[in-house]
Amino acid sequence: MVVSTKSETQTIVAPNKQIDTPSMVVDEEIMHRNIAEMAALAKSHGVKMRPHIKTHKTPEIARLQIGAGAVGITCAKIGEAEVMVDVGIDDVLLAYPTIGEIKIRRLMALMERARMIVAVDSHEAAEALSDAMAAQDRVLDIYVEVDTGQHRAGQPAGEQAVQLVLELARMPGLRLIGVMSHEGHANQQPPETIEGVAIDAGQKLVDTAETIRAHGVDISVVSVGSTPAAAYTPTVHGVTEMRPGTYVFKDTTAFRYGIYGPDRCAARIVATVVSHTSREHCIVDAGSKTLALDLSKGHPGHGYMIGQPGAVIGPLSEEHGVVKLSLDDPDLKIGDQVEIIPNHICPSVNLMDELLIVRDGQVIDTWKVAARGKIR
Amino acid sequence: MVVSTKSETQTIVAPNKQIDTPSMVVDEEIMHRNIAEMAALAKSHGVKMRPHIKTHKTPEIARLQIGAGAVGITCAKIGEAEVMVDVGIDDVLLAYPTIGEIKIRRLMALMERARMIVAVDSHEAAEALSDAMAAQDRVLDIYVEVDTGQHRAGQPAGEQAVQLVLELARMPGLRLIGVMSHEGHANQQPPETIEGVAIDAGQKLVDTAETIRAHGVDISVVSVGSTPAAAYTPTVHGVTEMRPGTYVFKDTTAFRYGIYGPDRCAARIVATVVSHTSREHCIVDAGSKTLALDLSKGHPGHGYMIGQPGAVIGPLSEEHGVVKLSLDDPDLKIGDQVEIIPNHICPSVNLMDELLIVRDGQVIDTWKVAARGKIR
Repeated sequence: MVVSTKSETQTIVAPNKQIDTPSMVVDEEIMHRNIAEMAALAKSHGVKMRPHIKTHKTPEIARLQIGAGAVGITCAKIGEAEVMVDVGIDDVLLAYPTIGEIKIRRLMALMERARMIVAVDSHEAAEALSDAMAAQDRVLDIYVEVDTGQHRAGQPAGEQAVQLVLELARMPGLRLIGVMSHEGHANQQPPETIEGVAIDAGQKLVDTAETIRAHGVDISVVSVGSTPAAAYTPTVHGVTEMRPGTYVFKDTTAFRYGIYGPDRCAARIVATVVSHTSREHCIVDAGSKTLALDLSKGHPGHGYMIGQPGAVIGPLSEEHGVVKLSLDDPDLKIGDQVEIIPNHICPSVNLMDELLIVRDGQVIDTWKVAARGKIR
Repeated sequence: MVVSTKSETQTIVAPNKQIDTPSMVVDEEIMHRNIAEMAALAKSHGVKMRPHIKTHKTPEIARLQIGAGAVGITCAKIGEAEVMVDVGIDDVLLAYPTIGEIKIRRLMALMERARMIVAVDSHEAAEALSDAMAAQDRVLDIYVEVDTGQHRAGQPAGEQAVQLVLELARMPGLRLIGVMSHEGHANQQPPETIEGVAIDAGQKLVDTAETIRAHGVDISVVSVGSTPAAAYTPTVHGVTEMRPGTYVFKDTTAFRYGIYGPDRCAARIVATVVSHTSREHCIVDAGSKTLALDLSKGHPGHGYMIGQPGAVIGPLSEEHGVVKLSLDDPDLKIGDQVEIIPNHICPSVNLMDELLIVRDGQVIDTWKVAARGKIR
């Protein structure tokens, strides 16, 4: 474990403070440290940082990331980009297919105000974007999305990706500047093999970029994603950009890699024990509407309760978190407030309207999760 | 299957209409029919309707339910109740423990504007409410929550529940008017046994109410919950009120009971095919941020795609719905819009800012999901 100024059993909110629950609290010190550390890692890799804002969806935090040296941000949806451009962020990668006339219109409106890059993984998407841009004598920067093993979106690394690039390079209105991948499959590996899988994925992307260049198409960006693989994929020679997201807060999913413990998790749900009918069973007021339902390979149940390492949270209904308590942990009583680290912090943040920012145990500010719920 | 005016393959939105996706659309005709049918069922059982608004979180729909004869509504959280009282709904059950000074203050503010009933399942909660009410010479209506087999919140039916009632009956500021249960465990049963389990749960609650009365405590309300058990629990002699929620929209969870098919599901996600790299694999722009992650015992995967009965939706990431397509179904192409019935409609609604109301295939109105995200 990395040494922290916080202990594993220390709550973010001072124990004597009571706040309305459930709420998400963010420890300013831990967050700043997480941001600084990933910025330093990018620097040591010699790659640019373009963090994915899906984790926090909050303009103030995007600004902190830019302040720490990020060249721009990554968004999944145009609605998220609109929020971020509204607050002055001027370099945005849309790491998601832009399909349909309505979306293209919204993209073109954004291009008036910011430098936009769009990920493309199909001939159809490229053609529609090309038609729209050429009709207005505009040029849009494009990354081709390449599947390096995740098998989600993206053209398979190698021949198929190169084929799409060659088609796209002939289309007016588009400027192909890079390739990107998301090595999400590496995160599904056992901890001892993540390094190999992540490096293999990065190498596939770099090799694809080299083949593209050999065809005479000049691309400058080779962009990789993901926090768990951030220590590995960007080390592949030829990678130029990284797009981690979760690092800013971290969650129980990070526990399994053995590098981070609860003390490095900046965002937590403060919940209240609302029912407690036996020593081994209580209910907290954080269910799936607060913690989300994602499972974690790093921790059993639906989250990690600070100071109750034996507690297993779940099953969750929407408003009820059923907690199986361990007799080895201190007993809880109705009205006690507890802090829970969600398994996957991103969807939990998406359920919040606001984040309570905490310094030295005291709530010092409330930040609006302005890009929450931007599904379009 | 109940005969419907819609077929199982008919979409809510007319096929030639394109809307920005993902969006939730609600078919007005199906919704009205679902509301009327449950109102008629309550009438035939001779019980009062107090629907849980967690499914829709939308004032317009709560008003439709009141218009169909509901005596009031059920909310989980005070924040939901605040939204509903703001639009003039004046009889609200908070079917959730009200714990902590902040919550009690908010409850007391609501009592100025509406008749509030609060569920209680602990001595601690009762005492805090009693102290607060008595200090201001106010009286709060209470249901004691009874566990009839779900093992979530509630005092176990029988002796323990009666014990809490007797303590509570002596506390100033509280008026015990009923008992309530949520027979959620019945919904987990195989379809052929749900009736027996639901009736057993209802009988336990009625028996507990009778024991309470035998102790001289006069309670008038015996309130049961849940849509899947709605045809059974309220038939138990002595039940006086039912609190179904999901019926207004329905979802794939209802399929397993064999009574309803897709044609009765009023709310669906319209999604777009955004990537389609093989005949058997495509990506839609509805992931866990849109469909939620709940699994269903009524259908494999993460939802039911209209017109693609062989499609299996999942795995989901936040913005990507990976879909395994069946060669027996029509092929899809990038840009096609599809309608998906979520497994569990309530958490999916909670991810929406608005509902598009559709009549005869055309969007005729947009309703704000005003109580969305009210986790407190």
